[in-house]
Amino acid sequence: MKLDCYFTPSEVTEASLKGRVVVIIDVLRSCTTIAYALLNGAEKIIPAGTVEAATKLMSSLDRESTLLCGERDGKKVSGFDLGNSPLEYTREAVAGKTLVFASNNGTKLMSRAIKAEEQLVCSFVNVGQVVATLGSQGVEPVILCSGTSGRFSLEDSVCAGMVAHGLEKTHADAWELNDGAKAALALYEKWGGDIYGMVSGSSHGKFLLELGFGLDLEVCSRVDSVPVLCVLKEGRITASHQ
Amino acid sequence: MKLDCYFTPSEVTEASLKGRVVVIIDVLRSCTTIAYALLNGAEKIIPAGTVEAATKLMSSLDRESTLLCGERDGKKVSGFDLGNSPLEYTREAVAGKTLVFASNNGTKLMSRAIKAEEQLVCSFVNVGQVVATLGSQGVEPVILCSGTSGRFSLEDSVCAGMVAHGLEKTHADAWELNDGAKAALALYEKWGGDIYGMVSGSSHGKFLLELGFGLDLEVCSRVDSVPVLCVLKEGRITASHQ
Repeated sequence: MKLDCYFTPSEVTEASLKGRVVVIIDVLRSCTTIAYALLNGAEKIIPAGTVEAATKLMSSLDRESTLLCGERDGKKVSGFDLGNSPLEYTREAVAGKTLVFASNNGTKLMSRAIKAEEQLVCSFVNVGQVVATLGSQGVEPVILCSGTSGRFSLEDSVCAGMVAHGLEKTHADAWELNDGAKAALALYEKWGGDIYGMVSGSSHGKFLLELGFGLDLEVCSRVDSVPVLCVLKEGRITASHQ
Repeated sequence: MKLDCYFTPSEVTEASLKGRVVVIIDVLRSCTTIAYALLNGAEKIIPAGTVEAATKLMSSLDRESTLLCGERDGKKVSGFDLGNSPLEYTREAVAGKTLVFASNNGTKLMSRAIKAEEQLVCSFVNVGQVVATLGSQGVEPVILCSGTSGRFSLEDSVCAGMVAHGLEKTHADAWELNDGAKAALALYEKWGGDIYGMVSGSSHGKFLLELGFGLDLEVCSRVDSVPVLCVLKEGRITASHQ
């Protein structure tokens, strides 16, 4: 069984996703935020490639039941209902709502990789759900890290390694890893014992700390704190409570 | 002092190279081949972005003193003088010659990154030369891994980590690493003790083994076996014997 991992969106071709289950990772913060939104009762999330695409899509949807959510360079877009901090996505704010969501990196990848048959939205907060699902399906996964502005990001790669580690643990010797998956596993071995330290020392983590989002980093580092499998299918992310 | 590492060419912008010394890594095999060619007396090497660009450039050069060198998918281009195996680049073949050289990944990056002030061509065979030069210059290096067809490659990344390790060893606490450099260092810590095992188990290593280039992998894994610093300046790579 093949297990492939790519660290940046540009490494992925459509051919490399064909017939595979795709795991999309964006630890800081869109995949964490999406898990919190679904945990707190959001009905579905529509990932948009850009802030402009989100705004355009919003104009065709019911304003009462839909929230416009997104960030530019870490901060909430002016005029939007919510930004990209998981702490904003409370039950009061999101229960029963549809969210149109544009983040800098993660939702861009989600809106692009839409041709894959099934996609799982993954971060540290629900990584166990993802591993359990992949392990029980007998599929060949491809892990796509969102990275930061097209570049390698440490926190996404360590999370990818945590997925690889989880799969290897339950199905020893069954996996044939590509270079990216081998490296991700090594990075997990190095930093898996101190996720918060790694996240807060990463390039994007330091950037968010400077913006005052220190609490977000703690939330994003809590492994398996959100028991929700987030499934992206036909352009919509919904919860599959386990 | 900043030390940045990027694993794939698409992560690099021109702005990120400005005023920096660029280290270009392509372990399998162009940077190894270039070191061997210069060790064996080649006068200079002109890296070309594509096989077509190399052929075109060749038509304007003196055929007597110039060799046309390059590969497509691991194999020598039909009609070319030499391919991309370091073992072809003997003293008999290359002494005193100018080489026009097009490899799949490395020379593409070299011909593109041409705006940087100075570039060092690095692989395991001359990594110590690169570290010593960077250490003595007091500059802020950017390490660019060629990768394989635009994707992360393990052997280039471990070599990048060996550069980072060498710099950290001699200038402890002096370096501020980006996410890529931190990860490269962790990969070096994992595989630095078994370079040949890592190289021959990598995606591109396995591909070359299948093509019958097993001996090349051994040559490419011999750390500091070629005492030549390879400097790319104004589109020409020349030797700086230490």
